Amino acid sequence: MSRNQLLGDPANPIAPCHPLAGHESQIDELRATGAQFYQRGWSVGTSSNYSVVLRADPLELLVTASGKDKGQLAPTDFVRVGADGRPTQADQPKSSAETLLHVVVASVLPVGAILHTHSPWATELSQLYFAQGGIEFEGYEMLKGLEGIKTHERRFRFEIFDNTQDIPVLAEQVRQRLTDATNPLEYGYLIRGHGLYTWGRDVAEARRHVEILEFLLECQARKIQLVGPPSN
Amino acid sequence: MSRNQLLGDPANPIAPCHPLAGHESQIDELRATGAQFYQRGWSVGTSSNYSVVLRADPLELLVTASGKDKGQLAPTDFVRVGADGRPTQADQPKSSAETLLHVVVASVLPVGAILHTHSPWATELSQLYFAQGGIEFEGYEMLKGLEGIKTHERRFRFEIFDNTQDIPVLAEQVRQRLTDATNPLEYGYLIRGHGLYTWGRDVAEARRHVEILEFLLECQARKIQLVGPPSN
Amino acid sequence: MSRNQLLGDPANPIAPCHPLAGHESQIDELRATGAQFYQRGWSVGTSSNYSVVLRADPLELLVTASGKDKGQLAPTDFVRVGADGRPTQADQPKSSAETLLHVVVASVLPVGAILHTHSPWATELSQLYFAQGGIEFEGYEMLKGLEGIKTHERRFRFEIFDNTQDIPVLAEQVRQRLTDATNPLEYGYLIRGHGLYTWGRDVAEARRHVEILEFLLECQARKIQLVGPPSN
Amino acid sequence: MSRNQLLGDPANPIAPCHPLAGHESQIDELRATGAQFYQRGWSVGTSSNYSVVLRADPLELLVTASGKDKGQLAPTDFVRVGADGRPTQADQPKSSAETLLHVVVASVLPVGAILHTHSPWATELSQLYFAQGGIEFEGYEMLKGLEGIKTHERRFRFEIFDNTQDIPVLAEQVRQRLTDATNPLEYGYLIRGHGLYTWGRDVAEARRHVEILEFLLECQARKIQLVGPPSN
Repeated sequence: MSRNQLLGDPANPIAPCHPLAGHESQIDELRATGAQFYQRGWSVGTSSNYSVVLRADPLELLVTASGKDKGQLAPTDFVRVGADGRPTQADQPKSSAETLLHVVVASVLPVGAILHTHSPWATELSQLYFAQGGIEFEGYEMLKGLEGIKTHERRFRFEIFDNTQDIPVLAEQVRQRLTDATNPLEYGYLIRGHGLYTWGRDVAEARRHVEILEFLLECQARKIQLVGPPSN
Repeated sequence: MSRNQLLGDPANPIAPCHPLAGHESQIDELRATGAQFYQRGWSVGTSSNYSVVLRADPLELLVTASGKDKGQLAPTDFVRVGADGRPTQADQPKSSAETLLHVVVASVLPVGAILHTHSPWATELSQLYFAQGGIEFEGYEMLKGLEGIKTHERRFRFEIFDNTQDIPVLAEQVRQRLTDATNPLEYGYLIRGHGLYTWGRDVAEARRHVEILEFLLECQARKIQLVGPPSN
Repeated sequence: MSRNQLLGDPANPIAPCHPLAGHESQIDELRATGAQFYQRGWSVGTSSNYSVVLRADPLELLVTASGKDKGQLAPTDFVRVGADGRPTQADQPKSSAETLLHVVVASVLPVGAILHTHSPWATELSQLYFAQGGIEFEGYEMLKGLEGIKTHERRFRFEIFDNTQDIPVLAEQVRQRLTDATNPLEYGYLIRGHGLYTWGRDVAEARRHVEILEFLLECQARKIQLVGPPSN
Repeated sequence: MSRNQLLGDPANPIAPCHPLAGHESQIDELRATGAQFYQRGWSVGTSSNYSVVLRADPLELLVTASGKDKGQLAPTDFVRVGADGRPTQADQPKSSAETLLHVVVASVLPVGAILHTHSPWATELSQLYFAQGGIEFEGYEMLKGLEGIKTHERRFRFEIFDNTQDIPVLAEQVRQRLTDATNPLEYGYLIRGHGLYTWGRDVAEARRHVEILEFLLECQARKIQLVGPPSN
């Protein structure tokens, strides 16, 4: 069964006058993504949040509402927000507390979807490597799944930001790294003890990036299980 | 597919005169929870038990019957019990041997559901940390999924009780810790070599708490895999 | 969805004159068991075999045919065999090479079903503990899921036989341990580098025993991951 | 539910004039295989590729198109290619970059299907054992699932090739080892940091070989977790 066939909810369709009407297919893609990531253990306990970019100018995103079970998102568990992270429509549920982390990426990069997951390995490895500021990957064929990478010999540094409840401050830190003139952040980043953010031109590409980044973290952890913790 | 769509059993509905009639929706929530937890490996081999509070005064709970496969609970695999843990209706199956551990929580806290799971990590970590009496978690964003916690900087201590077949004695120990005036037990607890108990205002919240507590245990175990056993 | 609802194959029913006709419900239970164990990773690559006892005197079993994918057993992927392990009906597929390991249990104990699984941990732990002849479990609440055990303080020794391609010899070794007057083998056993055998009065009990024995092996392996290999 | 029942796409059938028309059943087998391997974590992030041999002389294969999500392959996500790895039909999607690794096996061995997976353990163990050129397995009952092996006492050496983006060069190295007169490569091989290739007379046998080789890698990794890294 296709993961996209999981969705739609004939018993509870989005009403024609609902603020989300017309966005059913993007909503269904995010719902399928949530069901998949929940099953993988990357989005349990109402953690994680997902968004798609509805338009670039003025910026508008569709983001998961706060506190929803990502394994069974309802068609109406989403919010439309603007460049300030606030709802653009009346009578919507509260958007995720981390909405600005979605907005900042969409305001800087030409992306179509942003995904945040919260797996056990992302949680632990972001703690273990926090003092070094990142985890470096090289020699992995899987790196080629990150859009634009053509060889396993390319090096990718998965940077780690410290966790905070002050999301505007973190969003500004991310903005600075995304727009760094000489060494901009690419593909995604980790938040210490919290999980990862990544993005893509559409939901499929962003989902692929999640799978690849989680795969790399899984490999890093398993390598440590095989040969011991990193000495540096 | 929504996990709640797993359920109902058209071939075997609860008869109108059955003691469980009228509670189909709560029963279906627990059945869906069982299917999910079984799949995760947290409720295999007929382990685990789940309950919902039907009313507070006089207290009545609906609890899983003893020895049922939690991955495929039938609509009638439940029992209504009172404040003494005994059936409130005639002709019901035997309730779980640990029924009093459900009753004691519902008699002290304003909860709607109590869930017990029995995962491999809960089993092993409750052994490993038994001498210290608990496992402390701090710095995890996932802590915020425990109702009322607002920051990852909050410390949570997951206390461990010794295992026993004398359930009334254990229930009394739990009651004392739940009602401790200065430092009451919060969110849940572990039983050594046995698993965890947690609760919430409804099944969804209790299930979220299970997912978060199992996530934290998973993280603790993986941390040990990465950096070795705790030295203290 | 109930695991037992996975089954039946309307497009390919067992014909009324087929040697398996009349045993559809037992066949469906074994097919559901196979789908479940395959998903868990305990029966991949056509490994494992399962049986039910059709009658005790003269002994007749229904056993999985040789070399079938246990994740998608067809209704006709089974064979009826007698006390000598040979087919009791004409025109049947070849039975599993290990058929005599099923027959020997059914000829000695009053069981209704015998299940063999082949998980990674059963494979590795049966190697690691082979020199000691078995793995001892005590202090696990999960032990109570083994029929007749009433407390976690009961000790269970999971014995290990050496692997061999000479099945009649192994079957005889198992028979001797099952009928040992002072210390008979209970609940199941391991074969080195190969997997486990267990049984029960029916498929549900045998399946529960598989889940419990696999859980205990999983716990033993995780304990070693946490605290290192056993020193004895 | 049979894995083969996952498939077909009534809403999007292969048109009668489509280059893939007439190959629906082989396509469905590969689509089911992809859904299964994706779920196991062996084919995430659009990694992996699969093929069936349509005819031997002149050689023609049906291969997965480049960059597709293996968890939800569409009926038209396949390409027909010839002995040079190029499309044999007009207006087809781009075939996998590793198409020649499929062609070389089919041009040398009498196989019906070739499967490439990309699991975390294949990735890490092929790095860990690269200096030794391979991983040796002996004493595993599961070895008997490799077609033609009759005893667990048989030794199997899983050879490792270095990774490269120059696929023709790697294909030639594989051809030489497959046709080595004294010690030909058998059953499959690993590519460093990349994954495994295996094959069989049909999709079912190739899939079984994937399951067995992944099982052996899983066992090797778990053994290291239990007793430490190999000393040689």
